[in-house]
Amino acid sequence: MKLICNQSDFNTHLSLVSRAVPSRPTLPVLANILLEANEETQRVYLVAFDLNLSIRTGFDAQVEVGGKLTLPAKLLTDIVSRLPDGEVVLEEQEDESAPFVILTSASGQYQMRGIAATEFPELPIVENGQLIHLPVEALLEGFQGSLFATSSDESKQVLTGVHLTMQPETLEFAATDGHRLAVVETAKQESEETPVKGKAAPDSEFDVTVPAKTLRELERMLGMRQLVPMVTVNFNPTQAVFEWGDQRLTSRLLEGQYPNYRQLIPKQFARQMTVERRLFLSALERISVLADQRNNVVKLSIDAKAQQVTLSVDAQDVGSGKESVSAQISGDSIDVAFNVKYLLDGLKVFTTSEVQVQMNTATSPVVITPLGSVKMTYLVMPVQVRS
Amino acid sequence: MKLICNQSDFNTHLSLVSRAVPSRPTLPVLANILLEANEETQRVYLVAFDLNLSIRTGFDAQVEVGGKLTLPAKLLTDIVSRLPDGEVVLEEQEDESAPFVILTSASGQYQMRGIAATEFPELPIVENGQLIHLPVEALLEGFQGSLFATSSDESKQVLTGVHLTMQPETLEFAATDGHRLAVVETAKQESEETPVKGKAAPDSEFDVTVPAKTLRELERMLGMRQLVPMVTVNFNPTQAVFEWGDQRLTSRLLEGQYPNYRQLIPKQFARQMTVERRLFLSALERISVLADQRNNVVKLSIDAKAQQVTLSVDAQDVGSGKESVSAQISGDSIDVAFNVKYLLDGLKVFTTSEVQVQMNTATSPVVITPLGSVKMTYLVMPVQVRS
Repeated sequence: MKLICNQSDFNTHLSLVSRAVPSRPTLPVLANILLEANEETQRVYLVAFDLNLSIRTGFDAQVEVGGKLTLPAKLLTDIVSRLPDGEVVLEEQEDESAPFVILTSASGQYQMRGIAATEFPELPIVENGQLIHLPVEALLEGFQGSLFATSSDESKQVLTGVHLTMQPETLEFAATDGHRLAVVETAKQESEETPVKGKAAPDSEFDVTVPAKTLRELERMLGMRQLVPMVTVNFNPTQAVFEWGDQRLTSRLLEGQYPNYRQLIPKQFARQMTVERRLFLSALERISVLADQRNNVVKLSIDAKAQQVTLSVDAQDVGSGKESVSAQISGDSIDVAFNVKYLLDGLKVFTTSEVQVQMNTATSPVVITPLGSVKMTYLVMPVQVRS
Repeated sequence: MKLICNQSDFNTHLSLVSRAVPSRPTLPVLANILLEANEETQRVYLVAFDLNLSIRTGFDAQVEVGGKLTLPAKLLTDIVSRLPDGEVVLEEQEDESAPFVILTSASGQYQMRGIAATEFPELPIVENGQLIHLPVEALLEGFQGSLFATSSDESKQVLTGVHLTMQPETLEFAATDGHRLAVVETAKQESEETPVKGKAAPDSEFDVTVPAKTLRELERMLGMRQLVPMVTVNFNPTQAVFEWGDQRLTSRLLEGQYPNYRQLIPKQFARQMTVERRLFLSALERISVLADQRNNVVKLSIDAKAQQVTLSVDAQDVGSGKESVSAQISGDSIDVAFNVKYLLDGLKVFTTSEVQVQMNTATSPVVITPLGSVKMTYLVMPVQVRS
């Protein structure tokens, strides 16, 4: 292998894939990045893989001799990121048992030992899968509105992922950690047939659960490159492949039955409150300082007569606080308590100027929705408190 | 106590003093901030104290009823920092056994329990001390050029501080961790007599060792307020009081004999190299990636004939690297090895475009100085390596 490339291209693409390098590799070769230089296309491809998630990316280079090898991810990225702007030459030395490369830049020269590309595990491929095209904007909206509600407890299995439901017209994202539920519904491009295999894409519902870690990486990568409008996704029951331009991300899917969350969302509400999101959020942030001292519980006193909601916390030994925010309230007045963190999480993710809070009783699910944005539903269970 | 003040003033000054609140207070009251409202001067003073370091600051407020009390530092700063812009009213409630205040802002009201001001320990005072005035600029230069070389090992006693030597015309800062030594000499304002006590300030040398933590806080506080040109310092053998405007910082001093560092600095050098600081620094940063893998040792091959210095590291199993930088070299060529971290630390702190490296042999102290800046000397011991 011999290639000449630009330091900044090399650096950008190394940092893209390096997120998939495991911090504790189970095989030595997984601590490396696979480099593939293609003489025909004059492109270089980089791959990292932690056996669950793989990231692959490509960039233009002057490829004088094609080839494939792996190099230590940390050493390579640390050196390349510190090189001065300009040309970098990477050349493999012949007659060595293991890959051995010389990296030359304007001022210096580095020699590095790698591992043969044949040791690098094969990336998963999805054959006869469900092939769909999704708009990047819809994906980013969906990720933003659901990822925060996933469980970070690894033992909770499917709850550590986001459940994606593809229907003919819509794409739904759902996440729950057992205490709250976030659902985002976005418009989807029509599904299309798998071009080669000729297998028809389904008109019916199709759903998978994707690990939150995968979607966070996808969110980060897509957020960096708003230029691409669509992502192609190929699913089978155990793997998903996301592909756009020269970038490809594969991920293991979470297996197991996802909770039937739709039945949790009440159809009708006896009470409704509309409140300015920023005012509500900043009042909650202040009151959360005291709630931190006392089980994170905040009491909302929704006063229909005064058209005002009062947030209060009584952390006995330390102190107490209350904040009032005006609101449009319909239905009877009610006191209802929440874990303040769940309210904050949702209100931070919304971007609208107003939110609507709908509820029935102080012990039944409460639904918060942003007014005039994507179709998003955030369900939170109140906390029962002795009055 | 009753006062009305501006949220942003209150917040700024709370965050200033809160750096002296201990993370693990040995007395409950040390987790609190002392508030003192003066009706006469219409000012509020805040104090925090960890028994070594105290910070006191003051700001204008409408003081309706003067008084003194302490409030929990974390709770108070967390709430005040989140309050909206505008007026904040702090009012102490009468008829309570312990101080109990109500804090009111535009949207909310908070109640907090405090501890009586009488429980707060007295701040150290320096009587009959050495009183001097120091220019802020000289102090900041001195701190920047010395703090990095202090030891972070608490068992090393005086080496965890910066040694200040006041002479009639100059102020010298010295720091060493046993492996390298940084000395900065700055111009000092003339010393003056202690106004009240009538004790003459010394014409002779006077020196103290100030904990690095104190000077880091001082650096931060002075860096925020470049408006003040001078700091008044009052020393005795165990305490220092730094004062400017309405801000006062007191600190315990480190006791014990500071090493006689001046005798370590060679008077004459057989070899000298002048090199562009940024080029040298970035080459070192790249090579340090490999040095990390091998005891941090980097070899400098100083080639008088080629007028070039070559940095190299051979981390056998991992790889090797070399970087060359052109330099003006006088004296014979030489190979000399260093801990790369010590070189990086010094070169990062210097601000000049060129640095001078002076040395005798590969095993004797090497002195690095910035060219055309404050008088700064950075001494590093080479590492002995088998060739």
